[in-house]
Amino acid sequence: MRAADLGERRLIQLLTKHLYRNRKVLAGAGEDDAALLSFGGKELVATSDIMFSSTHFPNGMKAEHIGRKIAIANLSDLAAMGAAPLAMLFSFGVPTSFEVAELRRVIRGINGVCSGYDAPFVGGDTKRARELTICGIAIGEVEKERALRRCNAKVGDVVAVTGEIGNAALGLRMMLKGIRKPSKLINAFTNPKARISEGRAIAECAVGTAGMDITDGLLFSAGEIARMSGVCLSLEGSRIPISREAREFARKYNINRNLLLDSGEDYELLVTIRNRRFGEVEERVEAVGGTLIAIGRVVGGKGVLLDERRVNAAGYDSLKPR
Amino acid sequence: MRAADLGERRLIQLLTKHLYRNRKVLAGAGEDDAALLSFGGKELVATSDIMFSSTHFPNGMKAEHIGRKIAIANLSDLAAMGAAPLAMLFSFGVPTSFEVAELRRVIRGINGVCSGYDAPFVGGDTKRARELTICGIAIGEVEKERALRRCNAKVGDVVAVTGEIGNAALGLRMMLKGIRKPSKLINAFTNPKARISEGRAIAECAVGTAGMDITDGLLFSAGEIARMSGVCLSLEGSRIPISREAREFARKYNINRNLLLDSGEDYELLVTIRNRRFGEVEERVEAVGGTLIAIGRVVGGKGVLLDERRVNAAGYDSLKPR
Repeated sequence: MRAADLGERRLIQLLTKHLYRNRKVLAGAGEDDAALLSFGGKELVATSDIMFSSTHFPNGMKAEHIGRKIAIANLSDLAAMGAAPLAMLFSFGVPTSFEVAELRRVIRGINGVCSGYDAPFVGGDTKRARELTICGIAIGEVEKERALRRCNAKVGDVVAVTGEIGNAALGLRMMLKGIRKPSKLINAFTNPKARISEGRAIAECAVGTAGMDITDGLLFSAGEIARMSGVCLSLEGSRIPISREAREFARKYNINRNLLLDSGEDYELLVTIRNRRFGEVEERVEAVGGTLIAIGRVVGGKGVLLDERRVNAAGYDSLKPR
Repeated sequence: MRAADLGERRLIQLLTKHLYRNRKVLAGAGEDDAALLSFGGKELVATSDIMFSSTHFPNGMKAEHIGRKIAIANLSDLAAMGAAPLAMLFSFGVPTSFEVAELRRVIRGINGVCSGYDAPFVGGDTKRARELTICGIAIGEVEKERALRRCNAKVGDVVAVTGEIGNAALGLRMMLKGIRKPSKLINAFTNPKARISEGRAIAECAVGTAGMDITDGLLFSAGEIARMSGVCLSLEGSRIPISREAREFARKYNINRNLLLDSGEDYELLVTIRNRRFGEVEERVEAVGGTLIAIGRVVGGKGVLLDERRVNAAGYDSLKPR
């Protein structure tokens, strides 16, 4: 069955059946003009990430992975603010000839993530388009003045990440090379995690942490925190966690380390934490099952240093010719 | 200059300059991973509308009107809930060859609306795409249990609209025919209003009103309220406000009334109000400069009656072949 056979309304009705919801949802997807949620007295966090088949969904990427990826990308932005998810919305552009079954698998991928992170899919839109398009929106809450702002880094802070760098970027390269054999790298790309628990644990410590996810590359994110905080992030290459699998694949295909650190697709968090509080924050992150790995320090100046040499991080940019 | 010359980041920096903001915005567009807003103890309302150049932006539609349209479409969904806007997000898909100047004009249109409705543009995303794509998101708040839900209609209620029906749909037809001469109809299409003040006035009366905007057609919306409330909406054709200009254009081009009432593009609200409270609600709407025009009654049964004959309203559907 094709989308045109069903029409927009019936398609929406079909797609919004059986969505996960919790008691905060007063009106969910397909029920009203807008999503309606009960709310407390905190700070509201809202984010949106949009993806297009021609740019973001490589051949061989399964529909469920597509759904998971757009949902995780949005939740990761909440994680990077230290926010707890409240709800998500998704707006779709669908070619008239697009298979409804395929779209349902996309929604299944989305809904699995929504359920796993207690972030009900409560609304959105569906329209005709030239290519498959998904715009995700995540709404969350965080205690007053606890958000991990990019501008919070201070000289003397420890720079840390929540996990290994480069697995997902190399997983994508493997897929683009036609490699389908299950591996840690491909799994990192197709089944990413959003570091919500880690972000929450750090925010709850209330130590004025700067934070950002590294979906456009570790070095790019380091540059952003440096720029917004008016400081320099000095990283030690030997401390940046890179998996054995990633090292082997990178060696085999001649991918140098800086390129790896400038690649996107990973959803780890990059944070800066006051030196004297680092141990305490690390414990809190470990208590929720995460890790916090120190990879450098915040120093005076600007930009990013890697082993004391200045690096220029462009990051992933979908609009620039590659 | 084309988007590819600038790159995604610089494009975002450029586009998010000089955006309207108010004191509730803690982190706005381009400043952090997500928008951050201070908030009170009310109900949260969130909505998203997505539009694509191939489907939604007819030739001859100016960039600023495109921006205005996507922003109004989203705010209209808040209006239809009786919500006050808090903030908006916009995610863009941009062909690499797209003119940056054109995109700036789109943003100018958006920002004009954001400023006019005190709904700061606080975040979003920009990626490469095959056609110009804009996904808008509006977030608002409404007092507990005051939202105009589609399921609130009760037998005996008065059915009313906030203004003339069909002007914008006919304005679009004029533009598609190549008519460019300024007129009330074209203006209704290119410069629509969201009925936020009217929606707020109605919600503040706390009379358990059902409400919906009529962007997919008056008859379609009537059918939706009927379906969600388990009632029948009985409309009187002679009471539905249609402008002199619309009547003349429709006569000239042989467009019958039911087609007009089934056309989208208007942003008026369709509401149902307890009969004995109608006068009071009407006064409140008039006090904010609006109008409320009774066009029928809620009766037992289901579906929609127009002059006591059953009508089948399909409404506008972008995925269906026309």
